[in-house]
Amino acid sequence: MGGDKAPDMVIAGCDTAQERHPNVEFLLFGDEARLNPLIAQTRYLKKAARVVHTAEFVSGDAKPAVALRSGRKSSMRLAIDAVRDGEAAGIVSAGNTGALMAMAKFVLKTLPGIDRPAIASLFPTTRGESVMLDLGANVQCDTNNLVQFAIMGEVFARAVLGLSQPSVGLLNVGSEEMKGHEELRAAAAWLRETHLPIRFHGFVEGDDVPAGTVDVVVTDGFTGNIALKIAEGTSKLYSGFLRGAFASSIFAKIGYLLAKSAINKVRLRTDPRRYNGAMLVGLNGIVVKSHGGTDALGFANALGVAIDMISHRLNDKIRDELAHLAPPPANDAVTT
Amino acid sequence: MGGDKAPDMVIAGCDTAQERHPNVEFLLFGDEARLNPLIAQTRYLKKAARVVHTAEFVSGDAKPAVALRSGRKSSMRLAIDAVRDGEAAGIVSAGNTGALMAMAKFVLKTLPGIDRPAIASLFPTTRGESVMLDLGANVQCDTNNLVQFAIMGEVFARAVLGLSQPSVGLLNVGSEEMKGHEELRAAAAWLRETHLPIRFHGFVEGDDVPAGTVDVVVTDGFTGNIALKIAEGTSKLYSGFLRGAFASSIFAKIGYLLAKSAINKVRLRTDPRRYNGAMLVGLNGIVVKSHGGTDALGFANALGVAIDMISHRLNDKIRDELAHLAPPPANDAVTT
Repeated sequence: MGGDKAPDMVIAGCDTAQERHPNVEFLLFGDEARLNPLIAQTRYLKKAARVVHTAEFVSGDAKPAVALRSGRKSSMRLAIDAVRDGEAAGIVSAGNTGALMAMAKFVLKTLPGIDRPAIASLFPTTRGESVMLDLGANVQCDTNNLVQFAIMGEVFARAVLGLSQPSVGLLNVGSEEMKGHEELRAAAAWLRETHLPIRFHGFVEGDDVPAGTVDVVVTDGFTGNIALKIAEGTSKLYSGFLRGAFASSIFAKIGYLLAKSAINKVRLRTDPRRYNGAMLVGLNGIVVKSHGGTDALGFANALGVAIDMISHRLNDKIRDELAHLAPPPANDAVTT
Repeated sequence: MGGDKAPDMVIAGCDTAQERHPNVEFLLFGDEARLNPLIAQTRYLKKAARVVHTAEFVSGDAKPAVALRSGRKSSMRLAIDAVRDGEAAGIVSAGNTGALMAMAKFVLKTLPGIDRPAIASLFPTTRGESVMLDLGANVQCDTNNLVQFAIMGEVFARAVLGLSQPSVGLLNVGSEEMKGHEELRAAAAWLRETHLPIRFHGFVEGDDVPAGTVDVVVTDGFTGNIALKIAEGTSKLYSGFLRGAFASSIFAKIGYLLAKSAINKVRLRTDPRRYNGAMLVGLNGIVVKSHGGTDALGFANALGVAIDMISHRLNDKIRDELAHLAPPPANDAVTT
């Protein structure tokens, strides 16, 4: 029931995802009077969908704490409960982000060895795409959090992106060992010493993110959230200036018409939102947040992200990896 | 003597700046055997330049602490000393940033009421340009620092950009009052209550920076440095994709030729480096850092920034404003 164009967009997105992944079945939580007629009109979904009725849903502007307290019968909460109870392998929602995070944390709990979940997403780079986390789940992060994010990001890049030896970098204001604050330096020392098969690159700077210097960029949720939004905004700024430039002369206008399809591809390619699917990693269950303003295709992509995470057994692999994490090097003070 | 193409680029830049600002005189610190022949070839500078000879200079990779200790006769240090002694109104350098900051802080000291200087620069936005600070001088900032940065940024926007009532925002992960960490919330509470003529907008998010939501964006040096480099990198990513797109078909190639000059303007306009001049604000003296890789025109722009700051009496205005800053609201815990 979440998202600007829900539930129509959600149903259409599930239909597309079902076409792409014929083995997947869908549990749809919400108002059956609205969902059933939409499902009946689909081509693929109708054979693989079951509706769990509830009249309640979490509104887009509900405060997370309020949703947590009073939304126990909401479609979002019931869907998360289904993941906890093993009825569903994962949840995708285009609804209220804060409520989804709060409910998912409360109901699913974190994986063993993970103190806090992180929001991860893919970032466009000159080399393709990188995973970046945390993008806003945790405003302040200690050394343990950063090391755990690094491990989760690395496993994600291996399991879902299919990279055999992804490189991992910690976002900082310089690449030298003494740069940045204490938590970062301690996390770097730990990652350098760990016996896990992690390919730790060291510190990376802001421009290394779009350059694709590493496959996994690890940062705290404050910096990550601002970095993501600065990138989105800069991409939009560039598009806007470009539109203005193409309208500035008759030659430029004709030039635009000729190059239009190529330019539109660039616009899509540089938009970090195109992937549409922020993963909440580190919980006992797969949770993907689709953007609220997405269309059916975007929602299908978010479903695809969840399906990938499930079929590659992301959480099992994170669990395995964490079981082998050695404690931090004794000679480095690790802030907790 | 600092910068990749120094001293030739520096002398040529001074010549251009002297043409633009005929009343300005230049003190040039460095090796006179190299500087004098270059100055003799200039059209405008030769009438307004004096060389202060020194054979020593700070190398680009020198550690700040080392430069501070052993670079007392370096061209950079002598130039800063000249500002302290009132022989020069300000210094512009394309040399080692860390050394410049360390030396300038040590020699010039901060303005009364300023605990730490900040690096400020202009950021391209859909509405024109905004001032952003701190861009990397202080990895960790407390509430006092953030409030002082806000005041300095506001005065800069008024004095140098000529805005009559610039708006000021604090960079955060959301616009609601309870968002972000304690230092930010306390700074916001203080700025909301202050009796200075500051137009405090509240919190802004990452995408508000390129959108130009406020004229002055205040943040800590860690976040600011990463934000700046993410924006630069994203702009470069977009340009790179665009180049690829225009080469992708014969139509796109012709389109490019027709729209070329318009597109190049966009490339320049979205590059935060185009302003070429990071201001070190909050010191008893005007200090501007030009990019090391700049050309003569870029160096002339950096000189223009310094000349603007001096002629608009930026530091006098910051001093006045700070003298009227009331203490933080008593009911809010301010982290110091």
